[in-house]
Amino acid sequence: MTHHGTGQVGAAGTAVRQASLREHNLALVLRHISDAERPPSRADLAAATGLTRATVSALVDDLIGGHLLTEVDPAPRTGAGRPALGLVLATDGPAGLGLEINVDYLAACVVDLTGAVRHRAIRRLDLRPLPPAEVLAGLGDLAATAHAEAQRQRLVLAGTALAVPGLVTATGVVRLAPNLGWRDVDLVGALEAHPALSGRRAAGHWLTVDNEANLAALGELHAGTSGEATFLYVSGEIGIGAGIVLHGTLFRGARGWSGELGHLPVDPAGRRCRCGAQGCLEQYAGQEAILTGAGLAGLGQPADAAIARLAELAGAGNGAAIAALTEAACALGVAIAGVINLLDLDTVVLGGIYAPLAEWLRPPLEAEIRRRVLTAGWSPVTVRPSLLTGDAAVLGAAGSVVRAVLAHPARWLAPPA
Amino acid sequence: MTHHGTGQVGAAGTAVRQASLREHNLALVLRHISDAERPPSRADLAAATGLTRATVSALVDDLIGGHLLTEVDPAPRTGAGRPALGLVLATDGPAGLGLEINVDYLAACVVDLTGAVRHRAIRRLDLRPLPPAEVLAGLGDLAATAHAEAQRQRLVLAGTALAVPGLVTATGVVRLAPNLGWRDVDLVGALEAHPALSGRRAAGHWLTVDNEANLAALGELHAGTSGEATFLYVSGEIGIGAGIVLHGTLFRGARGWSGELGHLPVDPAGRRCRCGAQGCLEQYAGQEAILTGAGLAGLGQPADAAIARLAELAGAGNGAAIAALTEAACALGVAIAGVINLLDLDTVVLGGIYAPLAEWLRPPLEAEIRRRVLTAGWSPVTVRPSLLTGDAAVLGAAGSVVRAVLAHPARWLAPPA
Repeated sequence: MTHHGTGQVGAAGTAVRQASLREHNLALVLRHISDAERPPSRADLAAATGLTRATVSALVDDLIGGHLLTEVDPAPRTGAGRPALGLVLATDGPAGLGLEINVDYLAACVVDLTGAVRHRAIRRLDLRPLPPAEVLAGLGDLAATAHAEAQRQRLVLAGTALAVPGLVTATGVVRLAPNLGWRDVDLVGALEAHPALSGRRAAGHWLTVDNEANLAALGELHAGTSGEATFLYVSGEIGIGAGIVLHGTLFRGARGWSGELGHLPVDPAGRRCRCGAQGCLEQYAGQEAILTGAGLAGLGQPADAAIARLAELAGAGNGAAIAALTEAACALGVAIAGVINLLDLDTVVLGGIYAPLAEWLRPPLEAEIRRRVLTAGWSPVTVRPSLLTGDAAVLGAAGSVVRAVLAHPARWLAPPA
Repeated sequence: MTHHGTGQVGAAGTAVRQASLREHNLALVLRHISDAERPPSRADLAAATGLTRATVSALVDDLIGGHLLTEVDPAPRTGAGRPALGLVLATDGPAGLGLEINVDYLAACVVDLTGAVRHRAIRRLDLRPLPPAEVLAGLGDLAATAHAEAQRQRLVLAGTALAVPGLVTATGVVRLAPNLGWRDVDLVGALEAHPALSGRRAAGHWLTVDNEANLAALGELHAGTSGEATFLYVSGEIGIGAGIVLHGTLFRGARGWSGELGHLPVDPAGRRCRCGAQGCLEQYAGQEAILTGAGLAGLGQPADAAIARLAELAGAGNGAAIAALTEAACALGVAIAGVINLLDLDTVVLGGIYAPLAEWLRPPLEAEIRRRVLTAGWSPVTVRPSLLTGDAAVLGAAGSVVRAVLAHPARWLAPPA
């Protein structure tokens, strides 16, 4: 009995190891194909991975069967012999759904395995007067449309990542979103209750919730060329968030609440903030402070139109526009110089509304850095706009689902018989 | 010829692996002895490590021969049989020399393998008017005295770690120490030129230089009970530095310049700082700002006496003393609240002059944290004085040498024959 029992444990252990080896090899093959400059053949993959051709072929067959890979005709060759088929990531298989709740818009996008954006939608409305249930119903509608659109394009949404402008627990509860006035809102539960979405999680679709600046920073990290990057991603919206990437890894803090750059004090006895404190950066460099300073607030136009108008005015040399941008950039510079003195980051990425305004924000921001950062004289700091367009958070959210599929393909494929 | 060559490479590879295995096992045995509640026997070590008794005995013999371990009589036992000898870390073997240059003192200390402080010396003098060569000659004298004292106590200094209040390169050059007015000072080269120290490095003694707050934070980490701690160590001296420990690891930044907490702006248009900027924390909460506020500056007394007098006055309810401490604590609170909003650290350790003043600094500092940190309502932050006494940096420096010996004992022992 004891011996028999031990034998069972041994067999189970072996099965686990084999499953884990298969998972590892599937992900390895996908990574080679994803990183290759041109579609590799099975023989190319065997040479690159060190796996046997038979093993590679079995893995590739599984990945093709699971709609993770597609075979494509090779480029014409001049040499003799029939050229081998090339392999590329599938564009009709799993995809990621990114959702975003921000203070004055809701957004959704679908990204396929290749990283291509296959669907995007944004709905601009001021969420602050609305109860969370109404916001979530609207978001559920966007998600349902995205699911239908994905299906029409023969994609299957493997999972959803939701970006929110607040502090989120590991189980998807918003502990606090000061600009929305939300406390302890269970987003996962509410979204799953939407008629078009209920039951999806039971069917294997997963749902995660994260801070919008964190997801945008992850999107930026993976859009860049260096996986070892150390940078501060600054997300400018009505609130100001930050994602801190240290040596290629998002730093989440002791309990997951890092990145509240908008509440760094830049004038400790200054303007009152929604958070209850005084002089927070948000009150000097947030979207509303900038638009108010430029005389563009309260004109009834949507924020993206107002920001575009601000850029237009600044480009034309309008004094009020340039003064408002300079004031915001100085406040940003004070806070960011403090962050660099503390953390020694070599790169600052301007995201959200700051990306299209970077031309006017950068010079005063860089001047504050030169003035305040001890090491600025010999360790330069690069300030640049985000590589992603304005909706980095929702793109980063969708991308995080796709990266999870590519890193753990066995979760998507049926387990081996 | 080729075959013979390959055979040599193979043999060398095997030798390297064996040396690395021996290094690993030596360190494993030392760690068990260091962590044990009472001196373990060789048999205890074999049981705890899974190594054979013969292997453990050979390792222990090497460690005793190298003066890393000592055998001690066991505690009396009631059972039958002759009790086995216990093993403890040696107190007559290698030790670490910690040195510190600060703005108004030089310090040295010797710590043995058990962590006991065997020698300490501090020389108070304002270093700011002195050229670096004169400072280093004085430090060399302290180091020579420490070497002589170690020898008298039958200790051998395995290495030296030097703490400095500035930004240090990996090769031991101070790039910038604003409060000393130093730029590009080669400390390693200068110290080795001291008559009493020259030639030691060639004899295997190593010398490292690091920022004082970093070394103090490492000392605090190893003095604590949790190796996975995340905390901000705040070093209050004439300057204010910080060591950031994230999940048990010191975070050094993209290029090694992290921790310049003293130059976080707390009043961006306020007082001029020695660094060239305005409103830096140092100008509001540094030692000179506090003593000036309390009316204790420029009285010709050494700083430690002035700080002790300040604590005495505050304890007696002196209004000026309490007001000066409150003002400093509020400025510290503004800066530290920003750090916590950004990094989500759960613990703040008050070191340097802040440790003996913690009783008066904590209440206003904690009030700023409650007021400004978004998560303060549900994720409490602990503010506490350093576990080490005032000279945490020099203790941390000496400790870093001892930890290096314990982690890499083969570097200290002669290589195997």
